[in-house]
Amino acid sequence: MHTRTPRGGRGVAARTSSILAGGWPTAFLALVDLDTLPIPIVQAPMAGGPSTPELAIAVCQAGGLGFLAAGYRPPGAVVEEIAALRRATDRPFGVNLFVPPSRSGDPDAVTAYAARMAAEADRYGVDPGEPRYDDDGWEEKLALVGAARVAVVSFTFGCPAARTLDRVRASGASAWVTVTDEEEARMAEAAGADALVVQGVEAGGHRGSFGDDDGAGLIGLLALLRLVARATDRPLVASGGIADGAGVAAVLCAGAAAAQLGTALMRTPEAATSPVHRRALAEPGTTELTRAFSGRRARGLANRFQREHAAVAPRAYPEVHHLTAPLRAAARAAGDVDGINLWAGQAHALAEEAPAAELVARWGAEARDVVGRVGVRLSAGP
Amino acid sequence: MHTRTPRGGRGVAARTSSILAGGWPTAFLALVDLDTLPIPIVQAPMAGGPSTPELAIAVCQAGGLGFLAAGYRPPGAVVEEIAALRRATDRPFGVNLFVPPSRSGDPDAVTAYAARMAAEADRYGVDPGEPRYDDDGWEEKLALVGAARVAVVSFTFGCPAARTLDRVRASGASAWVTVTDEEEARMAEAAGADALVVQGVEAGGHRGSFGDDDGAGLIGLLALLRLVARATDRPLVASGGIADGAGVAAVLCAGAAAAQLGTALMRTPEAATSPVHRRALAEPGTTELTRAFSGRRARGLANRFQREHAAVAPRAYPEVHHLTAPLRAAARAAGDVDGINLWAGQAHALAEEAPAAELVARWGAEARDVVGRVGVRLSAGP
Repeated sequence: MHTRTPRGGRGVAARTSSILAGGWPTAFLALVDLDTLPIPIVQAPMAGGPSTPELAIAVCQAGGLGFLAAGYRPPGAVVEEIAALRRATDRPFGVNLFVPPSRSGDPDAVTAYAARMAAEADRYGVDPGEPRYDDDGWEEKLALVGAARVAVVSFTFGCPAARTLDRVRASGASAWVTVTDEEEARMAEAAGADALVVQGVEAGGHRGSFGDDDGAGLIGLLALLRLVARATDRPLVASGGIADGAGVAAVLCAGAAAAQLGTALMRTPEAATSPVHRRALAEPGTTELTRAFSGRRARGLANRFQREHAAVAPRAYPEVHHLTAPLRAAARAAGDVDGINLWAGQAHALAEEAPAAELVARWGAEARDVVGRVGVRLSAGP
Repeated sequence: MHTRTPRGGRGVAARTSSILAGGWPTAFLALVDLDTLPIPIVQAPMAGGPSTPELAIAVCQAGGLGFLAAGYRPPGAVVEEIAALRRATDRPFGVNLFVPPSRSGDPDAVTAYAARMAAEADRYGVDPGEPRYDDDGWEEKLALVGAARVAVVSFTFGCPAARTLDRVRASGASAWVTVTDEEEARMAEAAGADALVVQGVEAGGHRGSFGDDDGAGLIGLLALLRLVARATDRPLVASGGIADGAGVAAVLCAGAAAAQLGTALMRTPEAATSPVHRRALAEPGTTELTRAFSGRRARGLANRFQREHAAVAPRAYPEVHHLTAPLRAAARAAGDVDGINLWAGQAHALAEEAPAAELVARWGAEARDVVGRVGVRLSAGP
C-alpha cells in the first residue's frame, strides 16, 4: 500500500532522540482508553493550516483528546509542536501521519494539469510549484512519534504494514487507522489497528480512504458506523459532519466510542485557520469533493478555482498539491477566497466562533442532555 | 414547482367517494403525534414494488407508522390498498404521493437515450416503452387521500403549494414534505408542512429533492438533521441508511422525532420485493446514484445496466421511467439481476430476512438499550 524511501533509518532516529532529549516523562506510556476519556471527543488533525498546539492543548485540557497534524510539516516542526504540547499539559494526545501514497499512474495528466495551472500562476503573479512526488518524511516522522511516545498515532491515506503498527505500539502508543468502508476496516483490523477512525462522506478535507477511486468509500457516517461495527470489534472514532453535542450523542448511539470534530473547531481562536477561510466558513455555501487543489479527493466549499478545474484535475497526490501550493499561498495572502482550498465538512454552517475548550465542554454537556431526553422518549414505548 | 392537469376535479372526487363508501370510521381524524407513537419508526413508502398493505399493516400493528406508496399505482388500486389496511388495523398510517415533476428541458436527449435503449429492448425481447410525461394521477390521488382521511399524506419530488397542503390538512391528515437540504426545509415549512421527511444521501431509491441537479442535496443524514433542525422547528422524520435499533437511537439523538426505514424492510415476507432483488440485497455490493432507469437520480446496487448507461442517462423523469419499464419488467421476469433497478440504501447489507413486526419491535428495544448504555457512558463525564 505504501512505499518506503531510504531516507529514514538510524541517523534520523538518533537526531530525533537528540531533539527530544529536552525530556518528557519517560513513564508517560498509558494507552488512551476512549471509554474513560472525560469527554468522548477527539479533535480532528487538520493538516495544512488549522491545527496548532494551542488547539490541541485546549481540547486536552477540556477533557477531550487533542491531535497534532504531522502532514506537510517538517519533522523538526512536529517535534517542536509535541514539545510545546507536553509543556502545557500532561493529558494524552495524538499525532496524525499521512501514509505515503502510491505514485500517479498518469504523468501525462499531471503535465497537462501543470500547463493549465500556468494561467492561475499568472493570475496570482507566482510560479507554479514542481509537481513532485514525495512521502512527506514518512520514516523520519514514524521515528519521531515513536521516540516521543505520544498516546495515539493515527494514520490517514492508507493502512500501514502490520510491522509498522507493531513498531508504533512498541513505543507505547495506540495505532489508529482511518477507514471509509467495511473492506478498509477489515484490512486495518487485520494489520493490527487498535482503533479505527471511521470517516463518513460528510467529512471536510481529504478523503482518508486507502485508494482514491471515484465513487468508492462515499458512505454517510451513520450507515458506515453500523456497517463497520458489524465488520470489526475494534473501537470506532466517528468522523464527518459532527458539529455539536447532538451529533456527538448520535454517533455514540451508532456505535462509536468517540466523536472526532474538525470543521467545528476551525473558527476557534486557537486554530490557525486563515482569515479568508474563516470568513468563508461563516457564510452560506455548499461543499463538494474535488481533486483540483491536491490531486486527491477532498471536500471544500465550492469556489471559482474548484469549479473551473474540478472536472479535469487528475488523480495525482501529492504531485498536484505541490503544483498548486504557491498559487494557494499567494491567493491566501491576497485574501482571495476564490483561489484557495476551503476545506469544510457538510455541517460547516454549524461551526461557531468560540474558544475550543468552551465548545468541547458544551458539546459534552449537550450530548448528555440529548441522550437523557431520548431515553425518556423511548422509555414511554411499548 | 409542480404542474396541474385538468383530469382531476369533481368527477374523480365523486368516484373516489363512491369507492370509499364501503366505510371506515368517519371519526378517524386524529393527527399522528410522532412523540407518542409507541415505537418511533416510520415505514418508508417504497413505490414500484416493495410496498404492500401487508407490510404497512405489520409495521402499524407493531407500534410503528405504516405507509402506502401511491406512486406509479392506479388510483383505484390505491383506494383498494387503503381499504385493505383499514380492514386490518385501526392504527394510523400514511400514504405517499409523487409531486408532478417539471417537464424535461431536453427532448433530444430523451430521443437519444430511447435510441440507446433499443439494444436493451432487443436483449430482453420486448419493445421499449413510450418516453411520455405524466403526472402520476396527481389530482385524482390528492382527492382520494383526502376522501379517505388517512392520518398522514407525505410528498416526494417537490413541495406542493400551500393551498394543496391546506387541502390535505382539511381532510384531517398531517402533510409531510420530503427535503434533502436546508433550503428545501425552509420552503416546506413556509408552505405549511406539518413535518419534514429529511432524506440523507444514504437513502435507497429516488432522491426526494425538489429538483434533480447534480451534486445538490447529497448530504449525510446526521449532518443534514442538525442543519435542518437549525433551519426549522417542524418535527423531523429521518430517512437514509437507518437499518437497526442503533441507527434509530442515533437519529433521535440528532433531532429526529422518528426514523424512517425502507431498505431494512425489503427482505421481509410482507414486502413485494422481487425474488431477484431480494437475492441481490443478500449479497455484497455497492450502491451508486444513477438516472439510467428513470431519468431521476436514485440509489441502487450497481449492475450491468446501471454501469453501461449511467454516464449518458438524461435528466428526464418520468420519461425515462416509462421508456425502460418494459425492459425492467422483462429482466425481472427472467430473473436477470443485471437488467433491473436494484434500489437499495447504503446500509443494505444490514437488511434481514425476518417478519416486519419482529424487526420493528426489535429495533425499538435495541434503540432503548443503546440509549441507556450511552447515557451511562456519558454520566461518567466531568
